[in-house]
Amino acid sequence: MNRNDVTEKIITAKVAHGIQWADVARKVGLSKEWTTAGCLGQMTFDAAQAQVIGEIFGLTAEEQKWLQVVPYKGSLPTPVPTDPLIYRWYEIVNVYGTTIKELIHEEFGDGIMSAIDFSMDIQRTADPKGDRVNVVLSGKFLPYKQY
Amino acid sequence: MNRNDVTEKIITAKVAHGIQWADVARKVGLSKEWTTAGCLGQMTFDAAQAQVIGEIFGLTAEEQKWLQVVPYKGSLPTPVPTDPLIYRWYEIVNVYGTTIKELIHEEFGDGIMSAIDFSMDIQRTADPKGDRVNVVLSGKFLPYKQY
Amino acid sequence: MNRNDVTEKIITAKVAHGIQWADVARKVGLSKEWTTAGCLGQMTFDAAQAQVIGEIFGLTAEEQKWLQVVPYKGSLPTPVPTDPLIYRWYEIVNVYGTTIKELIHEEFGDGIMSAIDFSMDIQRTADPKGDRVNVVLSGKFLPYKQY
Amino acid sequence: MNRNDVTEKIITAKVAHGIQWADVARKVGLSKEWTTAGCLGQMTFDAAQAQVIGEIFGLTAEEQKWLQVVPYKGSLPTPVPTDPLIYRWYEIVNVYGTTIKELIHEEFGDGIMSAIDFSMDIQRTADPKGDRVNVVLSGKFLPYKQY
Amino acid sequence: MNRNDVTEKIITAKVAHGIQWADVARKVGLSKEWTTAGCLGQMTFDAAQAQVIGEIFGLTAEEQKWLQVVPYKGSLPTPVPTDPLIYRWYEIVNVYGTTIKELIHEEFGDGIMSAIDFSMDIQRTADPKGDRVNVVLSGKFLPYKQY
Amino acid sequence: MNRNDVTEKIITAKVAHGIQWADVARKVGLSKEWTTAGCLGQMTFDAAQAQVIGEIFGLTAEEQKWLQVVPYKGSLPTPVPTDPLIYRWYEIVNVYGTTIKELIHEEFGDGIMSAIDFSMDIQRTADPKGDRVNVVLSGKFLPYKQY
Amino acid sequence: MNRNDVTEKIITAKVAHGIQWADVARKVGLSKEWTTAGCLGQMTFDAAQAQVIGEIFGLTAEEQKWLQVVPYKGSLPTPVPTDPLIYRWYEIVNVYGTTIKELIHEEFGDGIMSAIDFSMDIQRTADPKGDRVNVVLSGKFLPYKQY
Amino acid sequence: MNRNDVTEKIITAKVAHGIQWADVARKVGLSKEWTTAGCLGQMTFDAAQAQVIGEIFGLTAEEQKWLQVVPYKGSLPTPVPTDPLIYRWYEIVNVYGTTIKELIHEEFGDGIMSAIDFSMDIQRTADPKGDRVNVVLSGKFLPYKQY
Amino acid sequence: MNRNDVTEKIITAKVAHGIQWADVARKVGLSKEWTTAGCLGQMTFDAAQAQVIGEIFGLTAEEQKWLQVVPYKGSLPTPVPTDPLIYRWYEIVNVYGTTIKELIHEEFGDGIMSAIDFSMDIQRTADPKGDRVNVVLSGKFLPYKQY
Amino acid sequence: MNRNDVTEKIITAKVAHGIQWADVARKVGLSKEWTTAGCLGQMTFDAAQAQVIGEIFGLTAEEQKWLQVVPYKGSLPTPVPTDPLIYRWYEIVNVYGTTIKELIHEEFGDGIMSAIDFSMDIQRTADPKGDRVNVVLSGKFLPYKQY
Repeated sequence: MNRNDVTEKIITAKVAHGIQWADVARKVGLSKEWTTAGCLGQMTFDAAQAQVIGEIFGLTAEEQKWLQVVPYKGSLPTPVPTDPLIYRWYEIVNVYGTTIKELIHEEFGDGIMSAIDFSMDIQRTADPKGDRVNVVLSGKFLPYKQY
Repeated sequence: MNRNDVTEKIITAKVAHGIQWADVARKVGLSKEWTTAGCLGQMTFDAAQAQVIGEIFGLTAEEQKWLQVVPYKGSLPTPVPTDPLIYRWYEIVNVYGTTIKELIHEEFGDGIMSAIDFSMDIQRTADPKGDRVNVVLSGKFLPYKQY
Repeated sequence: MNRNDVTEKIITAKVAHGIQWADVARKVGLSKEWTTAGCLGQMTFDAAQAQVIGEIFGLTAEEQKWLQVVPYKGSLPTPVPTDPLIYRWYEIVNVYGTTIKELIHEEFGDGIMSAIDFSMDIQRTADPKGDRVNVVLSGKFLPYKQY
Repeated sequence: MNRNDVTEKIITAKVAHGIQWADVARKVGLSKEWTTAGCLGQMTFDAAQAQVIGEIFGLTAEEQKWLQVVPYKGSLPTPVPTDPLIYRWYEIVNVYGTTIKELIHEEFGDGIMSAIDFSMDIQRTADPKGDRVNVVLSGKFLPYKQY
Repeated sequence: MNRNDVTEKIITAKVAHGIQWADVARKVGLSKEWTTAGCLGQMTFDAAQAQVIGEIFGLTAEEQKWLQVVPYKGSLPTPVPTDPLIYRWYEIVNVYGTTIKELIHEEFGDGIMSAIDFSMDIQRTADPKGDRVNVVLSGKFLPYKQY
Repeated sequence: MNRNDVTEKIITAKVAHGIQWADVARKVGLSKEWTTAGCLGQMTFDAAQAQVIGEIFGLTAEEQKWLQVVPYKGSLPTPVPTDPLIYRWYEIVNVYGTTIKELIHEEFGDGIMSAIDFSMDIQRTADPKGDRVNVVLSGKFLPYKQY
Repeated sequence: MNRNDVTEKIITAKVAHGIQWADVARKVGLSKEWTTAGCLGQMTFDAAQAQVIGEIFGLTAEEQKWLQVVPYKGSLPTPVPTDPLIYRWYEIVNVYGTTIKELIHEEFGDGIMSAIDFSMDIQRTADPKGDRVNVVLSGKFLPYKQY
Repeated sequence: MNRNDVTEKIITAKVAHGIQWADVARKVGLSKEWTTAGCLGQMTFDAAQAQVIGEIFGLTAEEQKWLQVVPYKGSLPTPVPTDPLIYRWYEIVNVYGTTIKELIHEEFGDGIMSAIDFSMDIQRTADPKGDRVNVVLSGKFLPYKQY
Repeated sequence: MNRNDVTEKIITAKVAHGIQWADVARKVGLSKEWTTAGCLGQMTFDAAQAQVIGEIFGLTAEEQKWLQVVPYKGSLPTPVPTDPLIYRWYEIVNVYGTTIKELIHEEFGDGIMSAIDFSMDIQRTADPKGDRVNVVLSGKFLPYKQY
Repeated sequence: MNRNDVTEKIITAKVAHGIQWADVARKVGLSKEWTTAGCLGQMTFDAAQAQVIGEIFGLTAEEQKWLQVVPYKGSLPTPVPTDPLIYRWYEIVNVYGTTIKELIHEEFGDGIMSAIDFSMDIQRTADPKGDRVNVVLSGKFLPYKQY
């Protein structure tokens, strides 16, 4: 058994029972983004959270333990994603990558925007010309220091 | 001559004269994100904008024409970026990619978040534990329709 | 269970029972292109459509639910396809890619031809020198806007 | 000197003088698709056509000779294109590739749609919800024969 | 079940019963090259041929149906083959590729040698310095036409 | 200076003066296949041959010396060739590769068909349905021996 | 002009004048590791440091400005390094990667060891069986937090 | 059965029983780094060690034998690791690779730091600004000698 | 069943029973290098040899037949091997590759050192500074001939 | 200026003046293998050797200094070499790689054959069936030790 097995079991149960990620997040008491990432095998739950997840998706005690193990992260099967929705994000990084780099350095100097001390919020915004996906990314700036 | 030559000339002038992207954007009258992307060879300026850019960076008339030609886009030299700042964004897509996909589909159904009808806003947020980079991405949702 | 399992079951049933995609499409009431893409795991059916598909290919209720889940798209096992029929399309993109780009930009300006708000129609055209495959692709033009 | 040098010279002249592909095609007397592909280094002109092209773009006699040499084809710098407009076409091949294969085989049996005995026509279609790019691809079906 | 399963069953039966491809071809009434390619999952048999193949290798009725389905072609597990015999062919294409291109264009003009309207004949030629493999490839020349 | 420089000079002279490979081969006294491969930087000429080549293409004494140096071979810029004519050969190796392997082993046992003790002959064959390219490959069989 | 040009000029001056990295670091007043990385185009100097570097290596005022621009980082020409010394480090990451991951997670929980808030110290340790390279890496632990 | 099966069984038992690597190392009598690498299939145990490991994780006699077989090493599924913790190490090699090379050569001359005659020690260092991961790498310097 | 299954069975039996390759070679009556390569699925045994191998490793009659079938060769899972022992050989080819090429051409002219008419002998050489691995490779020189 | 420039100058001088590697080695007083590798930019000369090399190939004082700088090693332009002579060596590593690994481990236990404490000797062996290339590789065995 490994974490992938648990992830697949969660997804299978989700489809079979029509479970919504937003509901799972509400029961776990965390954002829908972090909770979904955890259920998809990218984050680590504590024991209490694992039990809640386990009850929702019908996981055994051993499977709940796997939810508490830090996973080998990376959710995409290829370096360049083939799925159109995810590819658009890759495209944003590719087209705007050097722009993002320039503007963050202009504001903060040399360093990075953390992907660890990080949160993401995905919301729907109504728009008469077609609703929009609004995403807020927040990452701590970490400066390169001299030594 | 090609667009890359113009991009390199812009960057060289920027370093030599200490030009700031935010100032360029103010003079062009557009967001700093879009303006920087254009200067880095990813977007297309109109004639008036090209003239403003040309004056700032000292471009010839022919170079200004290149700014009005739709460029071959993609600003990264490798499929997986090696630069740490840009890599963190690639990592976000890799670790959170399937999460983003799940949550957008849960809210909107099958389709994508556009990277064309799209805008990006990068801001500094003060934080006592270390300032943060706050980024808002806004993309129109485009549904797959049946035919 | 996952969507791939359902796709494989559909294909196996198709071969075993000599089912034609055109017939499936007629029963579902949609184009043969969209219907086939859906059966091959690239599109999302609604409940009524999934039931029709399920009856044709002998799918269980749970398998029909999988047809209603947005799949991870991309139907090719390698970045450059090895199958000669599909490769010819890749070759068209490779040889004519910059031409397509130039002509669409000449007509519409900067932007893309959507692959989401998109339809495809494949027809046989009789020709004394050998029948031809005629394909009509229709995609909405999406302009890059300044912000 | 090689064909790439001639292609770059053509593109540079096009930008400097604001030449339109449609005009070039009219003067050459061929479709805008084939003519553009030829100017971009993917097709072979005959001597008379090369002279017309040469006059439009100011090419020397030797450069005109290069237009008559069969080029090493393939217009994209990477196996997976990074430019968003061209990528959408790659995505169509990736998402619909197996569908196209199934439907052509269902109609014609084993074989391919030729990318050599092939033509392409790109047109704008007015649409109140946003104009569309309409593309007609026509390729001779070539059957695999037994021997 | 898929075509690969049938291919593997054919190969397993071939080894277990010491079947020769030349004998299979004789019974099917086609060349050994085409017949072997079909048994290895690269070509499509008709019903009568599939029955002959089925009897030789002990295939079920359903497996015989798979032989009549156009397969996803490409018989090599990696883009650059590792097997020394097949690699030598890849090396011929790599070392002589531009030579083949030059000489066919010199004789025929722009176009290709078809790999679809194509046949191959592999023969042993006795030679006192060591027997030789003699291969004749015959492919229809397909010209690029202007449109 | 390196061999590539000499190859480029040969090709440039060929285009400028309309030289034919078949004529070059006749003057060198070797097959057009081997001679072309040598001129394209894949084979090694002796001093007398290099002089003939040098006179035809206007090479200096030093450039003629480079023709006598064994080159780093491999004439293609990418592992999978993008040029349609050369790709068809790659496709033949990919689709028929396992077939070629099976049939040579059935006839000769374990070993390879040499790509070194090798010759190639490319001819046009008239055919009412369209002329064909006929290629004869002849390679010595080299058996794996036990030790 | 770009940062690579400055890096190449620094290296050329270093070879021509026999400059030692340790001496450069002493004059700059920082560690030899950080200073060398900066001179090799991976870190950003401030104006005073750039002047010191500029005097040592004979850089112009404009070149010194480039030292103050955040570079596009990544110092290796291929994803898997070919140089034996650097490859050994890649091998350590490959062989010990999962071990490092397990032990850091066992001690700290889910998170990473920062490569930004990071320092490195390379020392020679005398050893009768052969001197050793001793390297101390120090990176802040950054925990994944729930949100 | 192969070494991977044993590795997976060890990891499954570790999760099920909450075993700590540090405890395993203590019982085996070696460092936690080497012991963990061995349990993860990268090092070779002797019979006595394999028995201790076997008792801790409940391995059969045959599985213990596999621990004594030299494994095919390399613990990462992709050349560029996707897991953020391991990627940071890859990034260190990429950003600092040429620096490490320069400084070791400056001190020792041409040669490498061994990854075989090598040890690693990972420790937590308390720090008021956030605890740090401290890693000491020690590798014998191996000089290239002339011959 | 395929050759890989037989290879895995041989390796499993080897570990379970502590069989030595040198003993297997002695019983087969061939070198340890060729015999091991054959057992690892890279060479072809005759019937008598297959029977000896079969008795040593407990193979069925059908498995012995697979040993007599020419395998698809190539024993490494990735183009650049990750295992340190095998990588060192790859490194030798990478670092010394052009040297080997130069020296063989200087001695023999254009051609190759055969990897088919080839033998390898691996021996231990005692050395007070540490025993050495001594490997003798012997390959027939095959000249490129003109035609 | 960089090492590659020096390497290219050496090769150009070698061709222009017909210099032999064996002669260079004799004058330097080292093996032809090491000397050639050094001249091809893979090894580091000391000052006296660099002077000898410099005189043979007409190098400036600055170029001689580059010969004394440890180069970034790796002499091949692609991970899988395209040149037939070098490919045969890659093929040996691919086909025999696991065999070499097994036999060295059987004799020495876990560890590697060094590619640093290493020498190579390439000789011609007369053989009535065709002369052979005989290569002796000698590398120190380096054991993995426990810690």
